[in-house]
Amino acid sequence: MIYDHRAPPMTKRPATSVPLIGVDRKSAEPLHRQVYESYRGAVLAGRLRPGQMVPSTRALALELQISRMPVLTAYAQLLAEGYFETRAGIGTVISEGLPVQRLASRTIQPSAPSADVGPRIVASRCLTPYRPFLPAWISGRGAFNVGAVALEHFPHRTWTRLVTRSARNGAGIGSARDVMGSLPLREAIADYLRTSRAVNCVADQIMITNGSQNGVELTVRALLDPGSPVWVEEPGYQLARDVLSMAGCRIVPVPVDQQGIDVARGIKLSRNARAAFVTPSHQFPLGMTMSVSRRLELLAWASKQGAWIIEDDYDGEFRYESKQIASLQGLDRDGRVIYIGTFSKVLSPALRIGYVVIPRDLLPYFMRVRWATDLGSEEFIQGVVTDFLREGHFARHLRSMRILYRERRSVLVEALERSLGSEAQIVGAEAGLHLVLLPKGLNDDVEPCKAAALEQLWLWPLSQCYYGPATEHGFVLGFGGTPPERIPKAVKQLKEVLRGRRQASLRPARP
Amino acid sequence: MIYDHRAPPMTKRPATSVPLIGVDRKSAEPLHRQVYESYRGAVLAGRLRPGQMVPSTRALALELQISRMPVLTAYAQLLAEGYFETRAGIGTVISEGLPVQRLASRTIQPSAPSADVGPRIVASRCLTPYRPFLPAWISGRGAFNVGAVALEHFPHRTWTRLVTRSARNGAGIGSARDVMGSLPLREAIADYLRTSRAVNCVADQIMITNGSQNGVELTVRALLDPGSPVWVEEPGYQLARDVLSMAGCRIVPVPVDQQGIDVARGIKLSRNARAAFVTPSHQFPLGMTMSVSRRLELLAWASKQGAWIIEDDYDGEFRYESKQIASLQGLDRDGRVIYIGTFSKVLSPALRIGYVVIPRDLLPYFMRVRWATDLGSEEFIQGVVTDFLREGHFARHLRSMRILYRERRSVLVEALERSLGSEAQIVGAEAGLHLVLLPKGLNDDVEPCKAAALEQLWLWPLSQCYYGPATEHGFVLGFGGTPPERIPKAVKQLKEVLRGRRQASLRPARP
Repeated sequence: MIYDHRAPPMTKRPATSVPLIGVDRKSAEPLHRQVYESYRGAVLAGRLRPGQMVPSTRALALELQISRMPVLTAYAQLLAEGYFETRAGIGTVISEGLPVQRLASRTIQPSAPSADVGPRIVASRCLTPYRPFLPAWISGRGAFNVGAVALEHFPHRTWTRLVTRSARNGAGIGSARDVMGSLPLREAIADYLRTSRAVNCVADQIMITNGSQNGVELTVRALLDPGSPVWVEEPGYQLARDVLSMAGCRIVPVPVDQQGIDVARGIKLSRNARAAFVTPSHQFPLGMTMSVSRRLELLAWASKQGAWIIEDDYDGEFRYESKQIASLQGLDRDGRVIYIGTFSKVLSPALRIGYVVIPRDLLPYFMRVRWATDLGSEEFIQGVVTDFLREGHFARHLRSMRILYRERRSVLVEALERSLGSEAQIVGAEAGLHLVLLPKGLNDDVEPCKAAALEQLWLWPLSQCYYGPATEHGFVLGFGGTPPERIPKAVKQLKEVLRGRRQASLRPARP
Repeated sequence: MIYDHRAPPMTKRPATSVPLIGVDRKSAEPLHRQVYESYRGAVLAGRLRPGQMVPSTRALALELQISRMPVLTAYAQLLAEGYFETRAGIGTVISEGLPVQRLASRTIQPSAPSADVGPRIVASRCLTPYRPFLPAWISGRGAFNVGAVALEHFPHRTWTRLVTRSARNGAGIGSARDVMGSLPLREAIADYLRTSRAVNCVADQIMITNGSQNGVELTVRALLDPGSPVWVEEPGYQLARDVLSMAGCRIVPVPVDQQGIDVARGIKLSRNARAAFVTPSHQFPLGMTMSVSRRLELLAWASKQGAWIIEDDYDGEFRYESKQIASLQGLDRDGRVIYIGTFSKVLSPALRIGYVVIPRDLLPYFMRVRWATDLGSEEFIQGVVTDFLREGHFARHLRSMRILYRERRSVLVEALERSLGSEAQIVGAEAGLHLVLLPKGLNDDVEPCKAAALEQLWLWPLSQCYYGPATEHGFVLGFGGTPPERIPKAVKQLKEVLRGRRQASLRPARP
C-alpha cells in the first residue's frame, strides 16, 4: 500500500491534556525547537504514552503564552517524524505504534557508542593479516619520503590561472555523469600516451580514475574473482597487493631479476594464474626495466592462458639515462594488457587523477564496476588538467621536472657513494623518484628505519616490499620531495643511524 | 639477484655490420627516434637476430652521416628497453634472450585488438544479471530527470571567488594523504549534521567519499561478506542494490508501507540479515518518512542480531511541510547505524563529495578499504566546499534552494492535479526533488517511458525500482532540474503520452 502525500488537516479543538513541556523565552534555542525537543524527549523517555492526546496547537500556544507559529512548526515536525499522529474525530495523539517497553529505558547518548553492544561482525576481507602501507613510526615527513614530489616547483601561477579561468566558465558544476571521465581529458591523455609511451590507444578506451590505486582496484574488480591466483613482482608494490588481497585473490609472488619479473618461474609457480601485476617501465621498488624478451614471454603466456596483464606505469615519465620506455601495452596485439597511469608523480598526488587504458571488449565490465563504485571522478580538476595538457604546460613541466629530479638523483647518488663508499650498493637509480640502498651485511632494515624516524628521516624498509620472507634488506629512498641542499645532511644522518646500529650490535648484552 | 644501476660502458670499436637502417633528415621525426624505430622494427620483424652485432655508435653515425648524439640517444633507449645488450669484449649486440620464433610473426597492430584472441574471462560479479541504472532509451536530458538539480541557480559568483582564492593559496596540491579526507571539512560537516540532522557525531568519525554511492560501496566492502543477506527497501534505490550485488551480497527485498520499511516482514524474510539499507528521511522512490516506531524496531532488531543499518540520507535537506527530519543515526545508542550523506543534491553531483559517519570502532576497517580503493578523495574541491560551509554560503544556498524547489514541487503537483485529476495519484511530494505519479490502471510503465524519451521527457518507470516483480506501476518524476515555466508543457506532454498509450491499447490488433 502506498500512502497519499496530502496530510490530514490538523483539527482545531480545546486543550485536553496538561502540557508536560515548558519553554524558555530567553534561550537562544528557537521556540519551535524547544517545543519539538520537549515532546520528543518526553516520548522517548516514556513520560508520554502511545495513544495519549496532546493539546491542540492553539491550546498549547495559549498555555505557554507564545505565538501559535512555533507550535505549528513543532507539531508538523513531530507528525512528520512519527512521534504524533492525527486521528479522525479525536485530534493529535502520541503515535500508537511506538514500542513502549523499548522507549522507557532509552536515552539519547551524547557520546560515541560504547564497545559493549553485541556482536560487531565486519567483512572477512578486512580481517586478513596485512602490513600497513605506512608503519606507525613513519610520520609522513622528513627526507627520503617515497611518493613525495617536488611540490615547491609546482607551476602554481599557471595552475591558478587555469583554475580561475575554469571556475569563471562555470566548469565542474555540470550534471553530466560519464563514468569514463571527461572526454577532452581522455583525448589529451590518448595523444600523450601514443606519442610518449607507444601506448596503442584511443580516447574511447580510457577511463579516468581516482589515482592509479583506484585504477588497480577497478581492474581487479572488473576482471578477477575471489580465489584467482595472480602473479605479483617479488619484491613489489604493497598497495597493489592490498587491492588483490581485499578482492580475495591468491597472491603468487614471482621473483624479479635484472630483466624484471621471471616469467619462467611464474609459470612454474602458477601457470594458470588469472593475471600478472607488473611495473615494466620502472620496477617498484628495485628500479629495473623489464627487458623486451621478458615482455614478449609475458605476453605469450597471457595470450596462451587467457590471463590479464596489469601494467602499472606509475612514474615512467622520469628517466635519466634514456628517453621514456615504450609501454608493454604497445607490444600487445591480443588485448591482454590493462595499462594504468597517473598524474600523482608528474603533478601532485593530491589531485587523485589517474587513468586506465582498457581493451575495448572489456569496457562494459569496467563501466559496470564504476557505476557501483562512485559513478566517476570529480569533474572540475579534470577540466584543469585537460587545459594543462592541451596548452603545452604539461610537456614543459615534465621537461623541467626531469632536469630537477635528475639533479636530486645525482646529488643523492654522489652523497651516498662519498659517505658509504663500498659499504653499500645503490640500485635502480636510472629512473623514477626513488632508488634502493643496500648496505652490506644488513639483515634487519626495520629497526634502523624506526631509529631514523625519530630524526625525521623517512626510510622505507625494503623488506616490507616482500610478500614472502625478504631475501634482501635495505632502504627505499625517495628523492622527489627532498631538495638537493637537504640531501647531504640527510645522508649523514642515515650514515649515523647505520653506524648506531652497528655499535649497538657490538655492545655486550647487559647481564 | 639485484643488478647494479651503473651500466657497463659502451665500447668504442669500428663498424662490424652493415646498418639495416636509414634516416630521413627532412622528416619531422627526430633523428634519434628514427634510429630507435628502425632498430626496434627490424628486431620485432626478425630482420635482426639475437646475438647479431650492431655497429658502434661512432660507426653508425659516420655511415648515416649524422652527428653521434642522436645515435647515442637511440642506443641508450634500445639498451634500456632490452633490444640491445652489451657484451664484455665484443660490444653491442641484439639481445640473446629475445624469443625468435615469437618475433618473426609479430607486427604491432595500430588498431584495437580483435575479438578472436583466446578466452577472455572477467569477474563473475560483472556477469550477474542487472538492470542498467540508465536504460538505453534515456538520454539524460529533458524534463523530470531524477537526480538533476537546479544548476542554473548554483551560486557561481561565490563559488568562483572561493575557488580562485583557494587556488591562489596553493590549496589542493599538497602531499598529505589522509584517507579520511580534509579535517576542516569533516569538522564543518559534523557541526552541520549535529545541528540540522540530530546526527550524533564528531569529525573523527567522518570519512569524505566520492559521493554517496562511494559511501555505500565503502560501507558494504568494510562490513559485508559475499553471501551476506541484506534487507533493501522494496521498491528501493537501484544503485545501492548494484553495490550489494557487486559485493556478492544476497538481496532481501522488504516491502515498505506508509511508515517505511516493514521491519516485522523483514524479520520474517531474513531475521539473520547482516544489514539493512534504508532511506529513512525520504524513502526512495516513494517518499515517505520512516516513523519513529519503525526506527526503534529497526534499531532493536539490528542490536539484537548484531546487524548494521546503512542510512542513506541523500536529499533529506529538502522538506517542504516541516523542518528537516532527525536522523535515524541520532536514535542509535549501540553504534549500529552508518550514516551516509552527500553534496550532490545540495550543490552539484559533479563535485562527487559525500561523507559517511562511522561508529568509532569500525574506523580501522573503513580506512583499510579506502587504502585499497583510492587512498582518499581529491583535495582541492574539499577545500572549496569547506569554505562554502564555514562562511555561511551553504546555509544561505540551502534556504534559497528550499524555497525554489518548493515552488517547483507545487507547480508540478498543481499541473498534475489540473491535468490528470482523478486519473492519477501523487505520492511522496513532501520532500526531496522527486515525486511519484501513479496513473490509475497502469500496468506497464516502461513503454510510456520509451515513448516519452522520444519527446525529451525523462520519465523513470517505478517498476524498475523493484527488485522483485513490481506491485505498482508509475513514474518517478524529478522536478529539481526542471524550471517551473517548463513544467506545464512537460505535464501536457506526459498526458499525451499516457493518452497515446490508452488509444493504442483500444486500437484493434491488425488481422
